[in-house]
Amino acid sequence: MMNYDLGKGKYANWVVSDVSFSADTLGKTESIMYLGNGYMGLRSVAEEPYLEETRNLFVAGTFNKFDRNEVTELPNIADITRVNITIDGERFSLEFGSVKNYVKQLNLKTAELIRSFEWKSPKGKELRFNFRRFVSLDNLHLIGMKMEVESLTHPVSIGFDSGIDSQMTNSGVQHFHEGDKRIFDKKFIQLVQTTTESKVDVVLNTAHELSVNGIKVDVEPIMGMDRRKVWLQYSLDLQPGDTLAMEKLTTIHTSRDKEYAAQEYQLELLREKSMENLRTASLKGYENVYKEHVAAWDAKVWNKYNFTVNSEDPFDALALRFAIYHLTVMTPAHDERMGIGAKALSGEGYKGHSFWDTEVFIIPFFIYSNPEVAKSLLKYRYHGLVGARKKAAENGYEGTMYPWEAAWPTDGEVTPIWGAVDIVTGKQTKIWSGFIEQHITADIAFAVWQYYKITNDQEFMNLYGYEIIFDTASFWASRLEWNEQKQEYQINNVVGPDEYKEHVDNNAFTNHMAHFNISLAMKYYEELKGKNPEILEGLESKLKLTDSYKSWEEKLEKIYLPQPRKEDMVIPQDDTYLNKRVIDLEKYKNQSKVGTLFNDYNLEQVNEIQVSKQADIMILFLILENRFSPEVKQANFDYYEPKTLHDSSLSLSTHAILANDLGREELAYSLFRRATEIDLGPAMNSSDHGVHAASLGGIWQSVVLGFGGVRMVDGKLRINPRLPKHWKDLSFTINWQGSKLQLHMDHSTLTITTEKEVSLIIEVFGQKYEVTGETKINYKKQNVEV
Amino acid sequence: MMNYDLGKGKYANWVVSDVSFSADTLGKTESIMYLGNGYMGLRSVAEEPYLEETRNLFVAGTFNKFDRNEVTELPNIADITRVNITIDGERFSLEFGSVKNYVKQLNLKTAELIRSFEWKSPKGKELRFNFRRFVSLDNLHLIGMKMEVESLTHPVSIGFDSGIDSQMTNSGVQHFHEGDKRIFDKKFIQLVQTTTESKVDVVLNTAHELSVNGIKVDVEPIMGMDRRKVWLQYSLDLQPGDTLAMEKLTTIHTSRDKEYAAQEYQLELLREKSMENLRTASLKGYENVYKEHVAAWDAKVWNKYNFTVNSEDPFDALALRFAIYHLTVMTPAHDERMGIGAKALSGEGYKGHSFWDTEVFIIPFFIYSNPEVAKSLLKYRYHGLVGARKKAAENGYEGTMYPWEAAWPTDGEVTPIWGAVDIVTGKQTKIWSGFIEQHITADIAFAVWQYYKITNDQEFMNLYGYEIIFDTASFWASRLEWNEQKQEYQINNVVGPDEYKEHVDNNAFTNHMAHFNISLAMKYYEELKGKNPEILEGLESKLKLTDSYKSWEEKLEKIYLPQPRKEDMVIPQDDTYLNKRVIDLEKYKNQSKVGTLFNDYNLEQVNEIQVSKQADIMILFLILENRFSPEVKQANFDYYEPKTLHDSSLSLSTHAILANDLGREELAYSLFRRATEIDLGPAMNSSDHGVHAASLGGIWQSVVLGFGGVRMVDGKLRINPRLPKHWKDLSFTINWQGSKLQLHMDHSTLTITTEKEVSLIIEVFGQKYEVTGETKINYKKQNVEV
Repeated sequence: MMNYDLGKGKYANWVVSDVSFSADTLGKTESIMYLGNGYMGLRSVAEEPYLEETRNLFVAGTFNKFDRNEVTELPNIADITRVNITIDGERFSLEFGSVKNYVKQLNLKTAELIRSFEWKSPKGKELRFNFRRFVSLDNLHLIGMKMEVESLTHPVSIGFDSGIDSQMTNSGVQHFHEGDKRIFDKKFIQLVQTTTESKVDVVLNTAHELSVNGIKVDVEPIMGMDRRKVWLQYSLDLQPGDTLAMEKLTTIHTSRDKEYAAQEYQLELLREKSMENLRTASLKGYENVYKEHVAAWDAKVWNKYNFTVNSEDPFDALALRFAIYHLTVMTPAHDERMGIGAKALSGEGYKGHSFWDTEVFIIPFFIYSNPEVAKSLLKYRYHGLVGARKKAAENGYEGTMYPWEAAWPTDGEVTPIWGAVDIVTGKQTKIWSGFIEQHITADIAFAVWQYYKITNDQEFMNLYGYEIIFDTASFWASRLEWNEQKQEYQINNVVGPDEYKEHVDNNAFTNHMAHFNISLAMKYYEELKGKNPEILEGLESKLKLTDSYKSWEEKLEKIYLPQPRKEDMVIPQDDTYLNKRVIDLEKYKNQSKVGTLFNDYNLEQVNEIQVSKQADIMILFLILENRFSPEVKQANFDYYEPKTLHDSSLSLSTHAILANDLGREELAYSLFRRATEIDLGPAMNSSDHGVHAASLGGIWQSVVLGFGGVRMVDGKLRINPRLPKHWKDLSFTINWQGSKLQLHMDHSTLTITTEKEVSLIIEVFGQKYEVTGETKINYKKQNVEV
Repeated sequence: MMNYDLGKGKYANWVVSDVSFSADTLGKTESIMYLGNGYMGLRSVAEEPYLEETRNLFVAGTFNKFDRNEVTELPNIADITRVNITIDGERFSLEFGSVKNYVKQLNLKTAELIRSFEWKSPKGKELRFNFRRFVSLDNLHLIGMKMEVESLTHPVSIGFDSGIDSQMTNSGVQHFHEGDKRIFDKKFIQLVQTTTESKVDVVLNTAHELSVNGIKVDVEPIMGMDRRKVWLQYSLDLQPGDTLAMEKLTTIHTSRDKEYAAQEYQLELLREKSMENLRTASLKGYENVYKEHVAAWDAKVWNKYNFTVNSEDPFDALALRFAIYHLTVMTPAHDERMGIGAKALSGEGYKGHSFWDTEVFIIPFFIYSNPEVAKSLLKYRYHGLVGARKKAAENGYEGTMYPWEAAWPTDGEVTPIWGAVDIVTGKQTKIWSGFIEQHITADIAFAVWQYYKITNDQEFMNLYGYEIIFDTASFWASRLEWNEQKQEYQINNVVGPDEYKEHVDNNAFTNHMAHFNISLAMKYYEELKGKNPEILEGLESKLKLTDSYKSWEEKLEKIYLPQPRKEDMVIPQDDTYLNKRVIDLEKYKNQSKVGTLFNDYNLEQVNEIQVSKQADIMILFLILENRFSPEVKQANFDYYEPKTLHDSSLSLSTHAILANDLGREELAYSLFRRATEIDLGPAMNSSDHGVHAASLGGIWQSVVLGFGGVRMVDGKLRINPRLPKHWKDLSFTINWQGSKLQLHMDHSTLTITTEKEVSLIIEVFGQKYEVTGETKINYKKQNVEV
C-alpha cells in the first residue's frame, strides 16, 4: 500500500513509500522507485527473489536486435541485485514467516532506495533487515547496495550468495553472447557479455565488504561459476544483537560509452578501466561514494531547479518532485547519441524506444530547466536524420521522415509490427504506427523551434536546427496528396495522436502540424536568405533547398486545414470521426485499468466508434495555441473529452492544462491529480512494464505551463499564472534566452528575479512588463469568455 | 520425502512417490518422475509455478547452437504445463495456506504422473486438487494433462490461465526465433517457433475441455497474447461439492520429424497436420487417449520384457522397473538419427549430448531386450561417422575418431571447453575430454561387436558394422605413438574413464580397448576375405582397407598393454598413477554430494593424488573379462576401490557386478543398492540437472549381467546366476541370436524356455547345456578363488 508522508523533517514530502509487502504487486514499486542516472536504470527489485518479480538493469543506448523478425531493444544487462539469503538453512522470503514494520521507500532527495522490516522466520527466529541502494549520479558507472541484518532473538547462521548473473533475458530473449568471467583474489568479480548483433561489450565488476557490528570481517567465500553466472557464497554466525553489514559496489562500463565514439576501443583496456573504477570506489568505501552521489543530486538537480509548491495537500509537492526525479534518472544527458525511452529506463515496455513523447511532453522541461540537456536530446534527433532519411526513401518520400519509434540513431523505424490479440481473428493485431503515424516528423520540428525560441541558441540552429526544420518540411511537401476535386492538398491514410483511429484522412493535428512545419521552414529560409545566406548555401547541395522552397511555397496555402463546424464550432478530428457511431462509454471511462474496451471490441470495430484513446485536437490546442480561439477550444473540449478514455498516459496532463487555460480550475486540478496518479497513485499494476515517461513530463507541464502559465508565444515569454485554489504559492527557476529567471507566484503576485544586468519583456495577462532584478507584478487573472 | 510403497494391488512396487511438498527440492521429482516417450521428455514440474522450478520440455534431435562460443544443445521447447490458478483472486501455491495428504507420484506401469492433495487457502477455503499427466507412448506427439479441483467448504471463484509459453530458455539462452501464434475459435491454440541456427520448426497445438461434476461446460475465455506467449484465461464459480475438471491435450511436431528426412517439408503442411493430430485426439477425448497410452506401455514394454524380481525388499523390483521405465522414455527409438542424452530427456545437464554411456551402459539392455532399438542406436553412430571422420582429420589422424560428446550426427565434437570454477585461479576449468578422452572410439566398436555376437544380425554388419569397426581401428593405428627406447607403441596424453587424471600416458583401459579394436578389425578382415570378399571390395575405396590392414598387422603386437605388477598384481591405471601421493579420502567418500574434493583442491592438484572419480580398470575387467584372471581382478578391486570416490554415476554398478563376479555378494548387493539410489534414493538434490542415464542402464546391468550372470563370452551365451541372498528368484526375457529366451532363476535352478523349434548351447558355471523348449538346469555356483 502506497504512502506519501513518511518523509520527516528535511525529507518531508520527499519520500514515496510502500508500507505493506505483497508479492502480487511487485511491479509497482520496482518501476516507480527505480534508480538511475541516465546512463543506466535499475529496477528496484528486492534482493531476495520472488516469482512475479521483473529484475531489470538497462544501460542507455546498448540496443540489440535478437533476430530480423524482432525490433531492436534495450537488453536486460546482467543482474547484480539478487542476493539469496538463508537463515539457518531456511530460504529468506517475505512470503514466509511474518513481517513487521515493512517499509520500502524511495527518498527522492537522496535518490536512495531503502527497504526495512523485522522478520520472524517460520521457525521463530527474529531478525531486522535494512537494505539501501543507489545508482550514483556522481559516478555514472557505479551502483551501491548495502544490506544490514541484525539477529534479534537467536544465535543464527546466515548464508548468502551474491555475484553477477547474466542469465537474464528480455521476456525470454537473450541479447548477449556469454563472455569471460573471473574471480580475482576471492573478492573482485568480473563478468563480460557482448550483445549478439550490435556487438556492444558490457563489463560488470563487483566486490563485497562484510562487517559485523561495524568491524570489518574476513570471511572466506565459496566461489561459484555456472553458465553465464559467477558468485561468492558467504556464511557466518550471528549472536543476538549482532548486526551483519554487507556492502556491494558494482561498476558497469560498455564499449558504447561515449568516449569510444571518438577514441579507439579495446576490450582489454575497458576491463582494466572498469575494474580500476571499482577498486577506487572500494577504497573510498560505501558511505563516501554514497555522499558524493547525494551531493551530485543537490548540485545538479534540486538546487538547480529550485522548485517549491505550497499546497494544502503536500502530495502536490511530492508529485512534482517525483516527476523531476524521474525526468532526471530517465535522461541520458551524458550522450547525445541517446534518447529517452517511453518507459524510461524502468522496464521492458516499449523496448527503450523514443517516441514523440520526448519532444512534446519531456523536452519542454529541459528547455526551461536545463537547456544543455534539451540540446543533447535534439542532437539525438539530428543524428537520427540518417535513419529518418532512410525511412523517407523507403516509403517513397523526400526529406526526413522520422521513425515513430527510434532506438540507435541510424536504425530508422523500429516500431514492432504485431501487438495484442485481436479478439475476432485470434491473431495478433497489426500495429500501424510505424507505417502511418507520421505527425512525429512535425513534432520534432516543433521541438526544435521551441528550443530555439526559448534559448536563443543560434549556434544550435546553424549547425543542426535549420537542417531538421527544412528537411522535415520537405518530407511533408512530398507527403501531401492533391485532391483534384477539392483543389487542395490532403494527408490521407494516417494515424493521428488518437491511436484508436487508424487509416484516417486529414487528421486535424497532423494537417495543422504539417502546415506549421512547412511555414516555419519557409520563414527561416527567407530569414536566412537575408541575414545569413551561407547557412543556406551550406545546406543547398544536401537538401536541394531552392527546389524545396519552391515546392513549399506552391503547396502551403493549399493544404486543407480542418476548421470548426459552423453549427457547433467542433473541428472534425478527421474526415469521418464525426459520422461514426456514438456508444455509451461509461463502462470504459475512468477505469483503473486502461484498454478495457478491447475486451469487447477489436481495433477494427473501435475504429468505427466515436471514441478516442487520448488528446488529439487538445494537444494541437496546446502546442499551436494561437491558431484557435478560446471559444473553439471550449467547444471541442466539451465535445471530445467525454469521448476520450485517457487510455494513453499522454492524455490527462494535456487536458489538465487545457482545462486550466479555459478557466475550469477545479476540473484542471482534478485532471492534474489524476495525471500524477498514473504512476504514483494507488493502482498497483499499471506501472508493471515501466513508468510513463511522457506523463512525468506532463506533470511538470501541468505545473509550469499549466498552473504557472509559463509559455513561449511567438517567441515571447508570457506568464499567466492560474494556481489551483488549494495552492498558496509556487516558485521555480527557468532559463529564458540565456538568462536564469527565478519565479515566484501566488494568487495575485508574480515575482520575477533576473540575473544582474539582465532586463527583458514579459507579458502577463495581456500586459507587457519590463523586468530586471527582483520585479513584483500584481496581476489580475483574466477569465476566459466562453 | 520419497516413498516407494504407495502402489497397492496391481500397482504394488510400481509407484515412486514424494509425500511431502518442499519448494527447495523440486528438482528431485521433476527429474526422476519426468515423462517421455523417446520423441520428447517433459520434466514433471508442478502446474502452478515455484521460484526454484526448472520447467523443461525437450524434443530429441532438435539441437541448436546459440552462437559459435557455445556448443549445440537440446533447446527448451515452449511450455504447456504451467497453469496459473487463483482461488477468489488469491494465487494458488502450496507455499501458502496449508496442505494435507500431499502425494506426487509416478506410476511406472501406466507412465502417469499424479499429484493430489487438499489445500486450505490463507483465507480458509478448502479445496481438493488432483492433477494427472502423461506423455503418450501410443501417439508420440501427444501430451495429456488433467486438473480436477473440488471445492470442499466454500463457494469459490476459480480462475486459471493456460496456454503455450515460448519465453522458456536454457538457463537464459534463447534457442528460438519467435514464430506465429494463433487462437482458433477461442479454443485451439497454435504456436510456432524455429531454432535460430539449425532452423528446426516446432509447432505446438493445445486445447482445453472444461467440465463441472462430469458435465461439459462452455466457458468463454479471455484470450491473451504477449511476446512469445499465447493463452486463454478462464474463470468460473464452484459451490461446495462441485468439481471442476480441465483436460488439456497438446501435440508437438517438428520439421526434424523422421518423415521429413525422406519427404519434402513445408511449414504450412506441418501446421495443418499437427493441428489435425490434436483435433483427432480431442475427439477421442482425454480418457481414451490415456487408455491407448497405457496399452502401449503394456505391449511395448512390460509384457515384452516380462521381468520379475522376488526380493525380501520389494524396493529391488521397483528399482528395476524404474530403470526400465527410464531406459524406455529416454530412448529415441523412433529415429536412428538420434542418440541418448547423458541426462536423458530430463534436464539441461550435458545438453542432451551422447557419451560412451550409451554404448557401455545402456545399449546392452537393448541388445538383450529389444535389439531393434539397439540397432537404431548403433545406426546413430554409423550416421555419426561423418562428424567422427571430421574430428579425426581435424586432429591429424586417420579413420574415425568419435566425438566425446555427440549431438546431431554430422556435428562432430560438441564437448564444451570450459567448466566449473578453478578455486586456485578464479577462472573456469578447462574441460579436456573433447580433446583427449579418446576411448569412446573403441567403446563404440566394442558395442557393435556385442550387438553382432548377441543378435547375429549379419545384415547390420554388412551395411554398417564392419565399416565402423575397420575405420575405428584405423584411427587407433594412426593414434599409436612409437616409443623408440621401449620399442613399443604407446598412447600418450589421454584422459581415461577416470576423469580425475588428465594428460596421462598409457591409460590401461584405453590401451587395451585400442588393442581390442584393432584385433577385432583384423579378425573380421580376415573372415570377410575368405567368406565375403565383396564387402571388403565395397569398403576398399572408402577406407583404403588393404593399406589399413597392413598397418594394423604391423602395429598390433607392439602395443604396450599395461600388465599386473609382480609384487601385488596391481595393473597401473596409467604410467604415473601408482607413484602419486596417497591421501586420506574419508572426508570425500560416500558423501551425499559428489565432487566435494573440489572444495579443497583444484583439478591440477587432484591430478597428483591417487584418487579416482570412477571405475577405470574395473570397467575394463567387465567388458573384456577374459583378458584377466579372477586373482588379478580381486587384487585390483582391493587396490582401486578404496581410492575411488564414485563421483561418476557410472561407477557403482560396475563395481557391483565386479564384486558379484568375485563372489563378494554382500558387497555386490550393497553397491547395487547404492547404485539404485543415485536417482531413486533419499538425496533430494542430486538429480536436479536430470536423471543419470548410464546409471539407469547400470541398474539393469547389475541385475541381468551381474546377479543374473548373463554374458556373451567369445560369442557364446554364458549364464552364471549369483542372486543376492535376499532374492528368492528372478525372471526375464532376453533375445539371443534371433530367438526369445524366457529365463527364470533362483539360488539353485535356472529355467530356460526357448521358442518352439529353437535349440541352443548355453554354458552355466563351466558346464555346457543344450536347451530347447523349457529346460531346467540345477546349477552349483562356483566361488571364485582369491
